[in-house]
Amino acid sequence: MRIITLLTDFGLKDGNAAILKGIILQISPNAQIVDISHVIQPQNILEAALILFHAGIHFPPDTIHIIVVDPGVGTMRRPIAAKIGTQYFVCPDNGVLTMFLNRADDKKDIQCIHLTNSQYWLPEISHVFHGRDIFAPVAAHISMGIKLKELGKPVFDLINIDIPTPQKSLNAIRGMILHIDHFGNIITNISKSHLEEIDRAKLLIKICGIELKGLFNTFGDSCNGEIIALLGSPNYLMVSMVNGNAARTLGGTVGQPVEVFY
Amino acid sequence: MRIITLLTDFGLKDGNAAILKGIILQISPNAQIVDISHVIQPQNILEAALILFHAGIHFPPDTIHIIVVDPGVGTMRRPIAAKIGTQYFVCPDNGVLTMFLNRADDKKDIQCIHLTNSQYWLPEISHVFHGRDIFAPVAAHISMGIKLKELGKPVFDLINIDIPTPQKSLNAIRGMILHIDHFGNIITNISKSHLEEIDRAKLLIKICGIELKGLFNTFGDSCNGEIIALLGSPNYLMVSMVNGNAARTLGGTVGQPVEVFY
Amino acid sequence: MRIITLLTDFGLKDGNAAILKGIILQISPNAQIVDISHVIQPQNILEAALILFHAGIHFPPDTIHIIVVDPGVGTMRRPIAAKIGTQYFVCPDNGVLTMFLNRADDKKDIQCIHLTNSQYWLPEISHVFHGRDIFAPVAAHISMGIKLKELGKPVFDLINIDIPTPQKSLNAIRGMILHIDHFGNIITNISKSHLEEIDRAKLLIKICGIELKGLFNTFGDSCNGEIIALLGSPNYLMVSMVNGNAARTLGGTVGQPVEVFY
Repeated sequence: MRIITLLTDFGLKDGNAAILKGIILQISPNAQIVDISHVIQPQNILEAALILFHAGIHFPPDTIHIIVVDPGVGTMRRPIAAKIGTQYFVCPDNGVLTMFLNRADDKKDIQCIHLTNSQYWLPEISHVFHGRDIFAPVAAHISMGIKLKELGKPVFDLINIDIPTPQKSLNAIRGMILHIDHFGNIITNISKSHLEEIDRAKLLIKICGIELKGLFNTFGDSCNGEIIALLGSPNYLMVSMVNGNAARTLGGTVGQPVEVFY
Repeated sequence: MRIITLLTDFGLKDGNAAILKGIILQISPNAQIVDISHVIQPQNILEAALILFHAGIHFPPDTIHIIVVDPGVGTMRRPIAAKIGTQYFVCPDNGVLTMFLNRADDKKDIQCIHLTNSQYWLPEISHVFHGRDIFAPVAAHISMGIKLKELGKPVFDLINIDIPTPQKSLNAIRGMILHIDHFGNIITNISKSHLEEIDRAKLLIKICGIELKGLFNTFGDSCNGEIIALLGSPNYLMVSMVNGNAARTLGGTVGQPVEVFY
Repeated sequence: MRIITLLTDFGLKDGNAAILKGIILQISPNAQIVDISHVIQPQNILEAALILFHAGIHFPPDTIHIIVVDPGVGTMRRPIAAKIGTQYFVCPDNGVLTMFLNRADDKKDIQCIHLTNSQYWLPEISHVFHGRDIFAPVAAHISMGIKLKELGKPVFDLINIDIPTPQKSLNAIRGMILHIDHFGNIITNISKSHLEEIDRAKLLIKICGIELKGLFNTFGDSCNGEIIALLGSPNYLMVSMVNGNAARTLGGTVGQPVEVFY
């Protein structure tokens, strides 16, 4: 039983994720299908890349991830399949794999295919819904044992998107807000590794016009309504409101600057 | 392993779809359960009928679809099970199957049963939640091999709802907006078949007070923010905003008229 | 194939429920995973307790329920696993099991363990995401046959939350609004059992500044837009608007009083 995950911007109303599942189950009746998210902001490739990486790393070897956040559907952008490390990906070539590609230590761990063999697609291909017509059937065929090389031609020039990285100076790190989560936690691109060998109790964090001193371990270490900084679940510097919504309270949005002085 | 799909207006918060799943798995432990949608607008049978058809046709033979959009629950409206072509349906008799019934070429492909045999229901039947008490257990029993004829009495007079169809004149087709999808695409009831033998480049489309000329192939063929017309994924004339929300921008809502001149 | 359910306040966007699923499937590849809800109001333990009970009772024996509504994550609050009757629960010790504990007739039907054996956790434990680090792997190990007693030390003093109960006087029952569901139905804490031996046709219900007379059987027994009282699906007194949203119309919110005179 192979796992196939779905990550899309389809929303929850229209049944489009279910269409992918119906097609997968026609080809691969025992596939174990898992939803990662269907409420990626429409056409937001960066958000999809972050959430894919955040969740994808927790799946078993041989998992196949389908990602359909696809503003270029029907244009010249390439449909691709890839194996990166132990996992498989089927998606448009638009940068959504950037974080997995960056993590691969060795180029030998990366195999990418431009999907050109229409034998593994639906018989009729629309201009507007390649998730249904190409990505779902290809992923299902991979789960049934079809090799990547059967699916098309090797490619070595996948598109990468810019994942913003923080700048370090003598006494400060300057980064930005990368993501606002469901709880309103403000997640920055400053990671635990940037803060190593630094006295965390003495940090001064400037974000959204306020200043915060030091890092807390967890939410319950402070009082309801207080704004605190801590290391979040994927080890990024995060600003939260205890039992509240920090992003709404502070007006934090993706892309705003954050500075850490030490 | 039989597939059972769920399409409801239950929403996502209250755990009611999970109740159906718990009951199904008690009776049919190996059922493969797939959600189509749980955010149908409350009591909107037309929306449920459209999404059921749009998604349902992509599922394998012998799939069992449970549909619970049921404003008449607890009244005289009949609970039914049906086989239409190769697929099964368990739902209230309120018109939600209209599009599948319309598609069946041959009345011989349709078998309908008024669910009267309470042996396949939960022991206690409420007035307000037949999804739990009747539809889920009946679908689970079908997945375990119970024949439709065991479940009740044949019926031949299922309720149909009016699926609005466009009117064609000498130089125009007059239709309406059928659905607004998650992306804000405006989907009309004018299909590809209505536009055959017509020069698509010369079409003039009037909708929401604006005029659009010609059909595009796909979103990426135009610029961000532009409003375009194209054929959508189930081959209906669709009006979209490239990387934007056409319905919100134009004020489009279900039922508004659309005219195509050629 | 063991069933594992998930009930969280994670929301649907960030992929955090999928992280739990990836970890479960690494340990227990054939687990049947069912979502109960991921849109519990953040940190609302009472809401989680109600929805867990409402849905959980419909699952088969040996189902394992993971509940992650966890404002105390990373503090001294205990992570626990429990068997209550025929079902298993893995969650923080914060009262979310109260309704299941209350229902257990016999203390012998309850077995609770403080999770202290880190052998069944992820290798690294964060301060902010025990759903991923502790609860998901522990539930997966239970599904693979690990006994509760292997997981830690027995405890007998689980935290209970106050589930508000109505007060009965000579001619009235005074309760409160317990839950507003997706349809806007107003669900009170006055149950069918409180109304036994009472003439339901003569009831007078005061709620949100209005008065309602008698109970209806179901929605379709009245006209569109009318406000009615009836017994809801888990047999609680419920106030609904036929094909409308009663809570929005009446301004009903959780905690407001309701009075029933007889």
